Amino acid sequence: MIVEIQPLHEAAMTAARDRQAQLVKPPGSLGRLEELAIWLAGVTGEAKPAVRARIVVAAADHGVAAEGVSAYPPEVTAQMLATFLSGGGAVSTLANETGADLICVDAGVNASTTHLDVVHTGLKPSANLAIEPALSTDDVRHAIKVGMKLAATAKTDGITILAGGEMGIGNTTPATALACWLTGKDPAELAGPGTGLDPEGIRHKAQIIARALDRDQSETPLAALASLGGGEIALLTGLALGAGRYGLGYVCDGVIATAAAAIAAGVAPDLKPRLVAGHLSPEPAHARLLAHLDLNPILDLQMRLGEASGAAAALAILKLAAAAHGGMHTFAQAGVSTG
Amino acid sequence: MIVEIQPLHEAAMTAARDRQAQLVKPPGSLGRLEELAIWLAGVTGEAKPAVRARIVVAAADHGVAAEGVSAYPPEVTAQMLATFLSGGGAVSTLANETGADLICVDAGVNASTTHLDVVHTGLKPSANLAIEPALSTDDVRHAIKVGMKLAATAKTDGITILAGGEMGIGNTTPATALACWLTGKDPAELAGPGTGLDPEGIRHKAQIIARALDRDQSETPLAALASLGGGEIALLTGLALGAGRYGLGYVCDGVIATAAAAIAAGVAPDLKPRLVAGHLSPEPAHARLLAHLDLNPILDLQMRLGEASGAAAALAILKLAAAAHGGMHTFAQAGVSTG
Repeated sequence: MIVEIQPLHEAAMTAARDRQAQLVKPPGSLGRLEELAIWLAGVTGEAKPAVRARIVVAAADHGVAAEGVSAYPPEVTAQMLATFLSGGGAVSTLANETGADLICVDAGVNASTTHLDVVHTGLKPSANLAIEPALSTDDVRHAIKVGMKLAATAKTDGITILAGGEMGIGNTTPATALACWLTGKDPAELAGPGTGLDPEGIRHKAQIIARALDRDQSETPLAALASLGGGEIALLTGLALGAGRYGLGYVCDGVIATAAAAIAAGVAPDLKPRLVAGHLSPEPAHARLLAHLDLNPILDLQMRLGEASGAAAALAILKLAAAAHGGMHTFAQAGVSTG
Repeated sequence: MIVEIQPLHEAAMTAARDRQAQLVKPPGSLGRLEELAIWLAGVTGEAKPAVRARIVVAAADHGVAAEGVSAYPPEVTAQMLATFLSGGGAVSTLANETGADLICVDAGVNASTTHLDVVHTGLKPSANLAIEPALSTDDVRHAIKVGMKLAATAKTDGITILAGGEMGIGNTTPATALACWLTGKDPAELAGPGTGLDPEGIRHKAQIIARALDRDQSETPLAALASLGGGEIALLTGLALGAGRYGLGYVCDGVIATAAAAIAAGVAPDLKPRLVAGHLSPEPAHARLLAHLDLNPILDLQMRLGEASGAAAALAILKLAAAAHGGMHTFAQAGVSTG
């Protein structure tokens, strides 16, 4: 698969850097707010960029949940989708507070979602990756295509920033398996508690991932995504690729969304400059994936919920960066003496 | 000076903790957003607290600026106050984005501010702390009184959260001197670049602080504030004390505002539970002061501007915490199965 990625707009970044140097503050004193404003200029092509954000939450179920790798039963996935749409999920409240759109996707939920206002992909839950490939290659390509199309629609709708998140009981297991595949690390090192496993549960999860990696023979990121991934991870891989192809910025959430972004960056390395890391989750594989992508998280609030909640929180910081960058006066405008 | 501090509302915190346990997410998975929601409940007395924030920026000039401890000339202080009020300062844009009020105070600016819509204290710039006490005891008591009165007014206006910030060319020098006095650390260890000193400038600044500490004989926090502080620091000490007395939450900004909060907590140790640290600045004395206060910063964005900019950015996170806490559905409401 070849996806052409739009490079950052260098002229807009230069204009934004020049502007930052003239704003009424010591150079560099707004720290990462300055860096993020320049990044926003690069992804939008605007010297005074605006954050018009959309959050896409992809949900799926996982055959591997049968191995007892989660503290929650699988019927929760569809119930949570309904909750997001009703405004009562964490991501619903955070999207509302940051002024972001919210779109939900059924990327293989283990229950009918025809009564819900979600994007339907027709995908089925993944197979048990401990014993067989999680998805077919066709399913992976289809999920990526739908994810990319969502990015294209966002661009048409005037969105400048996409944030991808997920819901799926058991899905830190495929995400951690992909993190092991991408970084060469051992499952015992990267497996974490997810939504709340105890140490014995974490050891069991690491063993399940080790079985999957023993079975797996993948040589490309897309093959690994089919072998070890899941529907929501493939959808988010497409969403991140689409952000690159259609010229949007993309905010990575936690370990699952970041695993998808890392697969996307494996497919199209030019994607990296269009990514930022919304936050650092305490899940051990997340820090490894961020290091793999050379991303420095905006927030570290010990959030570990998924649903794009960490990325949504980071949207608030991106908005502050844009507000300061666009709204501050220059030294000349303000009539303030320089040093 | 004895200031009676309102303890946190334990019943509201218990109600907020109970609510957090019922919200449709794994327990603890929103990390610090949960902790901050419970803190907001404690400071407001509301089980579903609201963030109605006011930012107070106190400005003053400093006799010690004559020692060449800043990269900027002293006339900048008054110019910046005018910029804040015109909407063009960093804090103006961040206050606007987070929906916070902004009030500016002349706590001893080296120029007339009668043409500006600021709170006037009648204070003069501080004396050169390298050679004599910065402020008189009367001036300190007056500045604290005005700061406390601003907190009382905020309470009357329905504000729940105060964030204190400052502007004052040269004011990392008194703040660092106070940090040394409070923590027993050496000026060479705590002196930092402020708005942009080079290593030679930092060594010079440390020497100036060492001279001040050699001269100083203070045995109480208020005496140290007079000897080593400044008008804006004394004002913010009063603002923090007032937040405690009148039952508000208080967000500490960078090294100067946090030095003031640490003096306030020295005067009234019961104040500590009403404080949060908005962010961590790279100024070395800031991390020491936060450790002294046992505060864990919400943000680490390498911001080092002052003006309450870091505290203002943290207001966005407090608002997210309140939005998730107040808006999320419970498991029962959402009809979601628990583990």
